[in-house]
Amino acid sequence: MKLTILGCYSATPRTFTNPTAQVLESKNHLFLIDCGEGTQVQLRKNKVKFSRIKHIFISHLHGDHFFGLPGLVSTFRLLGRENELHIYGPKGIKEAITLLLKLGDSWTNYLLVFHELESKESELLFEDDKISVRTIPLDHRVYANGFLFQEKPAPRTLDIEMAKKYGIDKSQFNKIKGGADGVSKNGEVVPNKKITSPPPKPKSYAFCSDTMYKESIVPIINKVDTLYHESTFLETEAYLCAKTKHSTAKQAGQIAHKAHVGTLILGHYSTRYKSLELFREEAQQVFPNVELADDGKIFEI
Amino acid sequence: MKLTILGCYSATPRTFTNPTAQVLESKNHLFLIDCGEGTQVQLRKNKVKFSRIKHIFISHLHGDHFFGLPGLVSTFRLLGRENELHIYGPKGIKEAITLLLKLGDSWTNYLLVFHELESKESELLFEDDKISVRTIPLDHRVYANGFLFQEKPAPRTLDIEMAKKYGIDKSQFNKIKGGADGVSKNGEVVPNKKITSPPPKPKSYAFCSDTMYKESIVPIINKVDTLYHESTFLETEAYLCAKTKHSTAKQAGQIAHKAHVGTLILGHYSTRYKSLELFREEAQQVFPNVELADDGKIFEI
Repeated sequence: MKLTILGCYSATPRTFTNPTAQVLESKNHLFLIDCGEGTQVQLRKNKVKFSRIKHIFISHLHGDHFFGLPGLVSTFRLLGRENELHIYGPKGIKEAITLLLKLGDSWTNYLLVFHELESKESELLFEDDKISVRTIPLDHRVYANGFLFQEKPAPRTLDIEMAKKYGIDKSQFNKIKGGADGVSKNGEVVPNKKITSPPPKPKSYAFCSDTMYKESIVPIINKVDTLYHESTFLETEAYLCAKTKHSTAKQAGQIAHKAHVGTLILGHYSTRYKSLELFREEAQQVFPNVELADDGKIFEI
Repeated sequence: MKLTILGCYSATPRTFTNPTAQVLESKNHLFLIDCGEGTQVQLRKNKVKFSRIKHIFISHLHGDHFFGLPGLVSTFRLLGRENELHIYGPKGIKEAITLLLKLGDSWTNYLLVFHELESKESELLFEDDKISVRTIPLDHRVYANGFLFQEKPAPRTLDIEMAKKYGIDKSQFNKIKGGADGVSKNGEVVPNKKITSPPPKPKSYAFCSDTMYKESIVPIINKVDTLYHESTFLETEAYLCAKTKHSTAKQAGQIAHKAHVGTLILGHYSTRYKSLELFREEAQQVFPNVELADDGKIFEI
């Protein structure tokens, strides 16, 4: 998995900071997560191929998470897109996008499929044989979801050299890849494990923004490799979290700790602070493995 | 008048080119004309004070002319704006903006006043004692207007030295400023013109984008000091103008010529061309005084 941060600052786009948007590359998919104003320019700057984006996940309908979506949908049209586009987001997103397209008499020439969300329970949004995407219900001023991306275990890999050593004919190779044991020239059964190597561990990524501290997400994101959790404020401004339904860096660290995640990435920073390192230091009081998101930064998961 | 080009390229925002937005400063007003995606960042880059914008004019409801508006309206709120904001644009603009605010449960804490347009005749949008703004009906794929900004003649300026020379008491100064003649110590009438100097010539600016060649705008923009007229294409692509309802640089020059304007500024370029100078050269075949808009460029009118 490769995560590219297109924007990770809260509230309003500024000259050198962009609102929330990320691209997650996994199993031949390019998932766009949130789409603040200016996302299409950030996609260009980060050399993301527009046509590879087939699924867009919108956490909630605050402007800094989706005001870049109408422009991106329109640009896809201008670029001559033909592939269908799936948009997952809170109920109302379809009305908003279709109204803007209608007003501009600019209907897309590709199929636009909306998947509107309103459940307060985690639900499956997308699945193929290699990966699944589920919602993570969050607690914000408006209905909001995070998203959990989980790769599925790949089949074990055939070790051709080893198979030859056991005298197994290549006519059996496809069956062995499917899990069957091999049979050597002299009729001896060779257990599958001896002639295959284990697949790489499937990876997982959880995106949680925007939300106040919400412990009920812990079982959903348990043991993910990487958790992106918003940290709009520091503890000195914890009083603002209750009012605005955001989290502090320490709270993000607490969630990471309780969920036994591998790495915590912080983001959605208020621009009132002079250094992002303050966020890392605060989260590390409760969880050691903390990374700081920044626009244009790439994380290998 | 001071015109700042925030963006002047057609279709989609790119790394180094922005969609349409301009700021016109005149008579203590800061008028925002169109608001493509990314306009709020362009405003910051060009150091425009957000709170001074009280009137926003939207030509038409294609994304490259108004997808930056929801974000700007939201940012005004986050910045604690209290002054009312007037938005002039095609019918439907109110529904679009209010739907987006409703979905984000982010109502403005300042008064948002929509002036929806649907007339096909030129109409007065705004007027005070120093300036007026009228629509210029255009011809595009959707309902579209340009905007004509006309300063009103200022009163003549009192020449205090000259008034003293004629022995006129300062108790008369306010009346003289209002147009009255003066009376000298010895009862002699001094004509107003002798003790006042003429005001600077009132300036005018016409913004016309997007539109195909439309000769009926000529009487409306007759003799404006500066005309911004779109030139999406060159004559080599004139066939695209009919289809997309845009203009060539030559057609923009023809309008400027027929309307006897002072200066023609070209803009709304398709990004297919290698040099903007090609647009200038083509327009100059029919009109000599041609300037090229570019993002961040400032024109004194």
